[in-house]
Amino acid sequence: MTPKPRKHRTPKIKVSDSTILRLSKYYRALVYWIERDVKTVSSDMLSQHIGGTPAQVRKDLSYFGAFGRRGLGYNVADLKGNIAHIMGLEKDWRVALVGVGNIGRAMLEYDPFRTQGFNILICFDSDPMKIGKTFHGVKVVNENYLEREIRENNIDIAIIAVPVFAAQSAADNCVAGGIKCIFNFAPINLNVPSDIFVKDENMAMEIESLSFALTNPTLARGN
Amino acid sequence: MTPKPRKHRTPKIKVSDSTILRLSKYYRALVYWIERDVKTVSSDMLSQHIGGTPAQVRKDLSYFGAFGRRGLGYNVADLKGNIAHIMGLEKDWRVALVGVGNIGRAMLEYDPFRTQGFNILICFDSDPMKIGKTFHGVKVVNENYLEREIRENNIDIAIIAVPVFAAQSAADNCVAGGIKCIFNFAPINLNVPSDIFVKDENMAMEIESLSFALTNPTLARGN
Repeated sequence: MTPKPRKHRTPKIKVSDSTILRLSKYYRALVYWIERDVKTVSSDMLSQHIGGTPAQVRKDLSYFGAFGRRGLGYNVADLKGNIAHIMGLEKDWRVALVGVGNIGRAMLEYDPFRTQGFNILICFDSDPMKIGKTFHGVKVVNENYLEREIRENNIDIAIIAVPVFAAQSAADNCVAGGIKCIFNFAPINLNVPSDIFVKDENMAMEIESLSFALTNPTLARGN
Repeated sequence: MTPKPRKHRTPKIKVSDSTILRLSKYYRALVYWIERDVKTVSSDMLSQHIGGTPAQVRKDLSYFGAFGRRGLGYNVADLKGNIAHIMGLEKDWRVALVGVGNIGRAMLEYDPFRTQGFNILICFDSDPMKIGKTFHGVKVVNENYLEREIRENNIDIAIIAVPVFAAQSAADNCVAGGIKCIFNFAPINLNVPSDIFVKDENMAMEIESLSFALTNPTLARGN
């Protein structure tokens, strides 16, 4: 008899960015195995797939509950379902895009967002040439109406893809409109209330890790 | 008498991605203080600036040498110089961009790259409408000549910003041309020799951390 899969529990401590990133990687590995009709996996297989250690896999998952069975490993479908639930991946999220430049347009064209339930419903820009136009089926609204439109459209997540000088005021207006999360592409530390989660996408710092790797070829571990 | 600043040493163990990212953040904090004429900083100040702990600051820096003086803190200019040297930030890097879509063009327009010494010298695309054209002063070359052009231009870093189906073969050609580092925007695990450093920029996984934060508002730590 297959043991009943255990439900995940809410951990008592904060979870690091790197643990959350690894959960995303485990999830992709599990999807890969489901497509190949694999029923159970070990910590070993999971760690090899993402380039970590079995102990790390067990530690990451143990934050959220006891999913595997010693000697039997993890049921692939159950673990995928549990991680999806932990990560909120089965939900649909309402996303606003602030700034319709190259980065903003790349976000609009980025199919994985939509297929994962991140729906960009509205865009904002200050450029009169863009306001009123439609990009990838999404209308561009005047940035002056940011707060009101964020509120009226019940937006969960704002993607901030405006130049540095405009980023803080865009963030302020998003927060005033009731946003809970910001995906920030502007190379600036946004000043927001502590209950707002900001994920910085700082490509200047990312590329510095390449310079580090080139300068210290034996030291950098890679992804 | 000011004590002579100590030179950094090469650590014996691999350095994690998160340590490298924090070095980038310390560097920015030090630049900020130099602009404000601050001469010395403590681990406490550094940790507050980037949102970490003083112990973490000391541990991160201790990989590379003994920079501070107990009770005196760190000399701002010396520490900035040491981190720049550790990270290879005072060098110029020769960068190739593979794929001139929205993400690629955003990279071309991204000023921080150029000001930090990451010079995009050549672009590649397979689209006949783009080949031969110039974007932001950089010429677009036929992707068929990737290997040869990478070699002849002594490229250090390739930015891969092509669709998933084209990413592995682009990476293969870059590696054959002698590249050492890849900044990969395609949502795929590139298969490269172990001496090639790959930094994945996977926005689909990044945005999942927002979904995690929305689903678990008290757990996510943010950047």
